[in-house]
Amino acid sequence: MNVFEAIKERRSCRNYLNQVVEEEKIRAILEAGQWAPSPMNLQPWSFYVVKNQEIKTRLKTACQESLQEVFKLSGWKWVDKYQVDFLTDAPVIIVIAGDPKKTGADQFISAPGLGYAYACSAAVQNMLLAAHTLGLATLWFTLCDPGKVRALIELPATMDIISMIVLGYPSKDPGQSKRKAFDETVTFID
Amino acid sequence: MNVFEAIKERRSCRNYLNQVVEEEKIRAILEAGQWAPSPMNLQPWSFYVVKNQEIKTRLKTACQESLQEVFKLSGWKWVDKYQVDFLTDAPVIIVIAGDPKKTGADQFISAPGLGYAYACSAAVQNMLLAAHTLGLATLWFTLCDPGKVRALIELPATMDIISMIVLGYPSKDPGQSKRKAFDETVTFID
Repeated sequence: MNVFEAIKERRSCRNYLNQVVEEEKIRAILEAGQWAPSPMNLQPWSFYVVKNQEIKTRLKTACQESLQEVFKLSGWKWVDKYQVDFLTDAPVIIVIAGDPKKTGADQFISAPGLGYAYACSAAVQNMLLAAHTLGLATLWFTLCDPGKVRALIELPATMDIISMIVLGYPSKDPGQSKRKAFDETVTFID
Repeated sequence: MNVFEAIKERRSCRNYLNQVVEEEKIRAILEAGQWAPSPMNLQPWSFYVVKNQEIKTRLKTACQESLQEVFKLSGWKWVDKYQVDFLTDAPVIIVIAGDPKKTGADQFISAPGLGYAYACSAAVQNMLLAAHTLGLATLWFTLCDPGKVRALIELPATMDIISMIVLGYPSKDPGQSKRKAFDETVTFID
């Protein structure tokens, strides 16, 4: 599968099979994350690969609590109905943490600098593309109180929770997606 | 070129040929950016494609001023010597801007929410990979006062400057890069 196919065919998946993901595939995906660019090549990311069912169950509870908070604050009806069973159905959750000290020279331009978070996001995107290439499905998930995720994986205080990737084999086709028209997104300054 | 090859072979390039980039390649790269994932598929990004030599020259001056500020604050010697001629040598600079209102439900979890910036970073990574696939070189560049970049591209006040991509044909091989050992980056919670 070439790069353009992977980029355009990747979808967010919320339905997973109870099927183990091969170790060599997990490793290939994590290595793809490691090869993201970062400020001064500081590689500010740490990846926590959660397969423990008890930790995933506690993660699901934490996310359900966060979603109820979001529902109260937003009033968005879809949030009240949003099911996060994929957090226990999927065999793997990768938590991406970032080190805010590894943000490069950005810290002196617009302090405190988000270069580390941008780099972690590039690592996430690499992993989503790598997973898709290997026939796996993913969801880039952030709807959870970072403090609760931090406690569950025992993240050092010096690191920030950036995002989670839900990873597994899909149990149904995630369907199609749409993008805005090209001209709505792009401005040429010739 | 497959996804893993693109991810591992992509390099940051600081030396560009004075050679036009084909319109269809620029378009394919921007479309790759558009297909990044984003919170609630809000597509918070806008891409500004700068080919105008006068604007690029003013951008270079702005970046040189920012680098001098960074040097004063950091004392890092490499910053004082860092040349940004690639900003005028490369035929194309893509400025990526993001809309902080399009950050999805994250805004209710850890306000104000950085989901929009993560999505813009995923779009950047897609564009770096797409460019590499097409035989082009890139640099993910952020070392410039965002206020000055904003003024140069006349960005609406509601949007944030996220990053720039320097894009063109390389004039020399950017060389090799290294990554930390796998075990330094990954923790398994089985």
